Amino acid sequence: MRHDARRPDELRPVRIERFFTRAAPGSVLIQAGRTIVLATASVEAQVPAWLAGKGQGWITAEYAMLPGSTQPRKPRERSGRVDGRTSEIQRLVGRSLRAIADLEALGERTITLDCDVLEADGGTRTLAVTGALVALVDAVASIRQTLPDPTRHPLRDSVAAVSVGMVDGRPVLDLDYDEDSRAAVDMNVVMTSGGRFVEVQGTGERATFTSDELVALVELARSGIRQLLDLQRQALGEAWPFG
Amino acid sequence: MRHDARRPDELRPVRIERFFTRAAPGSVLIQAGRTIVLATASVEAQVPAWLAGKGQGWITAEYAMLPGSTQPRKPRERSGRVDGRTSEIQRLVGRSLRAIADLEALGERTITLDCDVLEADGGTRTLAVTGALVALVDAVASIRQTLPDPTRHPLRDSVAAVSVGMVDGRPVLDLDYDEDSRAAVDMNVVMTSGGRFVEVQGTGERATFTSDELVALVELARSGIRQLLDLQRQALGEAWPFG
Amino acid sequence: MRHDARRPDELRPVRIERFFTRAAPGSVLIQAGRTIVLATASVEAQVPAWLAGKGQGWITAEYAMLPGSTQPRKPRERSGRVDGRTSEIQRLVGRSLRAIADLEALGERTITLDCDVLEADGGTRTLAVTGALVALVDAVASIRQTLPDPTRHPLRDSVAAVSVGMVDGRPVLDLDYDEDSRAAVDMNVVMTSGGRFVEVQGTGERATFTSDELVALVELARSGIRQLLDLQRQALGEAWPFG
Amino acid sequence: MRHDARRPDELRPVRIERFFTRAAPGSVLIQAGRTIVLATASVEAQVPAWLAGKGQGWITAEYAMLPGSTQPRKPRERSGRVDGRTSEIQRLVGRSLRAIADLEALGERTITLDCDVLEADGGTRTLAVTGALVALVDAVASIRQTLPDPTRHPLRDSVAAVSVGMVDGRPVLDLDYDEDSRAAVDMNVVMTSGGRFVEVQGTGERATFTSDELVALVELARSGIRQLLDLQRQALGEAWPFG
Amino acid sequence: MRHDARRPDELRPVRIERFFTRAAPGSVLIQAGRTIVLATASVEAQVPAWLAGKGQGWITAEYAMLPGSTQPRKPRERSGRVDGRTSEIQRLVGRSLRAIADLEALGERTITLDCDVLEADGGTRTLAVTGALVALVDAVASIRQTLPDPTRHPLRDSVAAVSVGMVDGRPVLDLDYDEDSRAAVDMNVVMTSGGRFVEVQGTGERATFTSDELVALVELARSGIRQLLDLQRQALGEAWPFG
Amino acid sequence: MRHDARRPDELRPVRIERFFTRAAPGSVLIQAGRTIVLATASVEAQVPAWLAGKGQGWITAEYAMLPGSTQPRKPRERSGRVDGRTSEIQRLVGRSLRAIADLEALGERTITLDCDVLEADGGTRTLAVTGALVALVDAVASIRQTLPDPTRHPLRDSVAAVSVGMVDGRPVLDLDYDEDSRAAVDMNVVMTSGGRFVEVQGTGERATFTSDELVALVELARSGIRQLLDLQRQALGEAWPFG
Repeated sequence: MRHDARRPDELRPVRIERFFTRAAPGSVLIQAGRTIVLATASVEAQVPAWLAGKGQGWITAEYAMLPGSTQPRKPRERSGRVDGRTSEIQRLVGRSLRAIADLEALGERTITLDCDVLEADGGTRTLAVTGALVALVDAVASIRQTLPDPTRHPLRDSVAAVSVGMVDGRPVLDLDYDEDSRAAVDMNVVMTSGGRFVEVQGTGERATFTSDELVALVELARSGIRQLLDLQRQALGEAWPFG
Repeated sequence: MRHDARRPDELRPVRIERFFTRAAPGSVLIQAGRTIVLATASVEAQVPAWLAGKGQGWITAEYAMLPGSTQPRKPRERSGRVDGRTSEIQRLVGRSLRAIADLEALGERTITLDCDVLEADGGTRTLAVTGALVALVDAVASIRQTLPDPTRHPLRDSVAAVSVGMVDGRPVLDLDYDEDSRAAVDMNVVMTSGGRFVEVQGTGERATFTSDELVALVELARSGIRQLLDLQRQALGEAWPFG
Repeated sequence: MRHDARRPDELRPVRIERFFTRAAPGSVLIQAGRTIVLATASVEAQVPAWLAGKGQGWITAEYAMLPGSTQPRKPRERSGRVDGRTSEIQRLVGRSLRAIADLEALGERTITLDCDVLEADGGTRTLAVTGALVALVDAVASIRQTLPDPTRHPLRDSVAAVSVGMVDGRPVLDLDYDEDSRAAVDMNVVMTSGGRFVEVQGTGERATFTSDELVALVELARSGIRQLLDLQRQALGEAWPFG
Repeated sequence: MRHDARRPDELRPVRIERFFTRAAPGSVLIQAGRTIVLATASVEAQVPAWLAGKGQGWITAEYAMLPGSTQPRKPRERSGRVDGRTSEIQRLVGRSLRAIADLEALGERTITLDCDVLEADGGTRTLAVTGALVALVDAVASIRQTLPDPTRHPLRDSVAAVSVGMVDGRPVLDLDYDEDSRAAVDMNVVMTSGGRFVEVQGTGERATFTSDELVALVELARSGIRQLLDLQRQALGEAWPFG
Repeated sequence: MRHDARRPDELRPVRIERFFTRAAPGSVLIQAGRTIVLATASVEAQVPAWLAGKGQGWITAEYAMLPGSTQPRKPRERSGRVDGRTSEIQRLVGRSLRAIADLEALGERTITLDCDVLEADGGTRTLAVTGALVALVDAVASIRQTLPDPTRHPLRDSVAAVSVGMVDGRPVLDLDYDEDSRAAVDMNVVMTSGGRFVEVQGTGERATFTSDELVALVELARSGIRQLLDLQRQALGEAWPFG
Repeated sequence: MRHDARRPDELRPVRIERFFTRAAPGSVLIQAGRTIVLATASVEAQVPAWLAGKGQGWITAEYAMLPGSTQPRKPRERSGRVDGRTSEIQRLVGRSLRAIADLEALGERTITLDCDVLEADGGTRTLAVTGALVALVDAVASIRQTLPDPTRHPLRDSVAAVSVGMVDGRPVLDLDYDEDSRAAVDMNVVMTSGGRFVEVQGTGERATFTSDELVALVELARSGIRQLLDLQRQALGEAWPFG
């Protein structure tokens, strides 16, 4: 059993609250154990310069940890430098959502997913992906009537993510901070509701891993993501746009 | 009557939730109407370089609006430049809290109040002061036993703040965004539970004001702050450290 | 009597020299005691992007202290960060001048007031407002014939500013650095020649203040500003455009 | 056959030139097809602040593309912002080398691998890892006599990397720029000479991938890395420190 | 005759006013024609980190143009980037003054010469050198009694500078802005009162020059600098520390 | 004899390799002794904003030292600040090449010379000029057919540069790092194949120099540059575009 009494293949309790704030058309507070992320989706009526005039939209993401989300306090990234970890996470979240999007169906607009970590206890980047999908669905719903073709939905599939890792010699699902800091191998997996992978990022900061361990970790992640996709569906209820 | 059916001297409904997150020792979600601020208080065991060795502590504040807190989306301040408005607000919050603090009683540590606006509908800076006081009280309680003299409380008084302004020719209390953008004169007032002012900042961006209007606005603010000080006391319950 | 033998309600000796330099159309060296500010007014034939096409002009201000204006030497703000104090002052000077301006009468141009402190001995921000008004009058005169309607003057009123504070338990006018660093309450007041306030900013960094003290300080400031408005009028002589 | 006549499982021709420059103790020019990277290894007699006093060393990497390495010219990253891609690559190279290092055996010193791309035609990050290992071996040799224990080698294993991807529906090895820009799935794999993985990073920017495709790509990468490890061994000759 | 009626070998009228401000120990307003520079010299009781403990001092310079010193207005260099021209000038002024200084005689302190251009009409960098020497003499006098050896003066010689150039095909002395913008060749020369050169910087932005022209320009500069050295001597009067 | 057995008027051995990389149309690896510079010339179909619409092109240069080019390792200039030395060198290289260019003949395009120092042993800036000319010739050849007037060559002359200095009391040519750090006077000279100077920059960081020394150093530089111009001609062979 794990230090918080979970089985190796057990997720932390997850809570998803839609419309947590009202300014942004998508606004989701998602919590897994003690990790809490607020994901908002804002729509702007233009695309980045390099996409202008190509008849398609763009989906991008930003990520930040509030200073009080961890102790000791984490200074704000205001110095003009976004640190490497932040930029990796922002790119991961953006790619994950674009992988299930039909950017032409979106028309020439940008949806920005802001994932702000209110409390950090491991797994913030994967929880950000899972929550951002829900905010994105709500934001798309708010502009549905103004799409180039309202019958063509800009999202083809749902997507969710989870971390897995080798902790104390065995594969475990959904690592919290304590487990993450002891993990020999850490892997983040992003998968669609169609069961296809968007990202598999396995890293051995302290140790290396074999092909067999790679396969075992990927399968463990798949089972966790299946549950998260169900939780997204429940949270969205009638608003679930996928088959 | 005002556009949201309030009387001119009526506050918006206020909600204060302590321990909204668990990482920081003080963590308060405060809401007034549709304005929502998360104020966390973090304690660090050192002071800024210019205070080192003087046997006293420091209280400081940072302020930011999450990008999705307003529409259109507000870009993050990551460029190495904090804009003028942000820095004014940070300084105001810090000064307001230091005004009721006994920094020697704190010992050589820094408490940082991070005020992150989750949703912005006017009055974010004054709500930040009001919420930050509560987070500060909880943070101080968490270190009470390690103070230089545990019998000497580092906070002498409570403090709260509110905005007032001349809207459509008459003084009104606690302006929301719609009123703020129409106000001829805008004033932020910070007052202690002892009834003394810490800050009176009246600005006529579009119009100027007379001595009589100044006095009327200050009195209106005083009545609003009295109610906010009561709400702080209720939220803190047994933890209220003031007389 | 004060440490420099002034009465509590006495200004420092003021000197105003117009056309101190010749490149900018308005260029005023203003001195109060040992505080010296060079205020230049430059005219550009365009407005900020957010004002373009609205048929009105803009007036803005920048403020800096030369490194040698104080000892120990103050490093230049070249790091990409303008500190909080600087940005507060810049905003104050800009707002004060816009409050007496008719921006439509100015047409689509920007006037920038650069207030550079050559020597700092307290009261630099209020002296900057007082000097900048004179430079602004001269700059407006230089473009008078090219205004949209030359008979409609872009300035409706003069404006000047002064600091007041509680020093050693009593209200005093026009604090120098020594007094400012001992003041329990510090207030900056900006007032038009019509006797209306543009800004009242009272701050108790070390102490708090009552309603009565607030009123007393505001009245003391009013008397000082009256004298400064007279000095502006004398300096401008025939160029004084107000009634 | 591929557009440059390679088989799907064929590497580009690789050239490794040690001691390309003489200032840094390790300096390797590595070329694969038209991609050219200069990797230098510099030794400094201190560690980052957060490692000080822990009796171990540090290995880190920086990555940059020279402006003329690609056309159109790529602007230098001098603005204070390192872009997300650069920071991801730097972190990948550093982690890959640390994974095979015994940092305690290094003593309290830092080795920095600077990987500067002289010409970019795809696969720069994996070629950087492969070349940096050789530079690192040479740098370690230069300090061998001053290690805490000269009999304990600070590197336990060699490491090399290659990209694989799904191009036109089939898995191919060592993508050049043309293939990379058409790839549906792109994967970077880092593996030790012991046959264990350090990193497996698979990304579907345009498409998603199945478990079977994941396994096929990983095996293809393994075969390519085996060849690269042989080329490193030949380049190092007598200097090869591994079993 | 030149456009302002000067002979080719004639300086503009020069005015030197010492103690223009009182905060810095050296403060010189120097004017040549319509170019005006305020040079202040501040003394700090420490040296840059790389000089610490070497028993010698440091002399450095900073240069800036006030925004209103030229029209159109020149934006402030606050972006975190000092432009190339500014940094060249700062380095020139610093080197020129260090060339005549005995840094060991100064002891472990830094003197910073801040050269702020109040009005710019050509020749600002050379006028900055000439004025900064006077401010430096006054600053050294203020610390004379605290030098390691008060009988050993930290300045060995005076130094002054002037520009020369090829304008309309002939060599002219002390170019103003109008001449500078038409000059085919531009040269800045810095020379000591002992008649030795510190810097000779000749640049043909639009044209190239021969050896004979180089020699003619250098001799013209020498004659101008002789006059400037006399003016420094007159301004310093009794305070002139050189033989 | 010098420490590396050269005569005072002897250059270090020079090697020039064209088309070192293939992405940029001009790419030259130039080496003098142990100093190695890679100069690439990239062509872009637009000019800086301030030149737009004037019917002429622009030639500019950037300079950087790779971190491993010197020991101890030199940190990258990524902080948003380009240091003074770098910016001086960039400006020198750009001016030197523009001095021999016919920018109208180039049409509205920009050629950027990137001079990256792979190894630094003195004389990097002058070697950059000498190598950049060759890369520029190759880049111009690549666009020859698209020039406004293909019969009008955008380069009028070749240009090369060398350093000279007073070392141990006598003038020497082409200083390496060891000599440069001992030189009393350091001078960089840039000269065209027509024998005319573009730049003469003599600096006495530690000592001053007389007119006679100035003349002797300039003549020594002239003889060295003659040889470098010959080496450029040999490297370009048939591609040499000058008379």
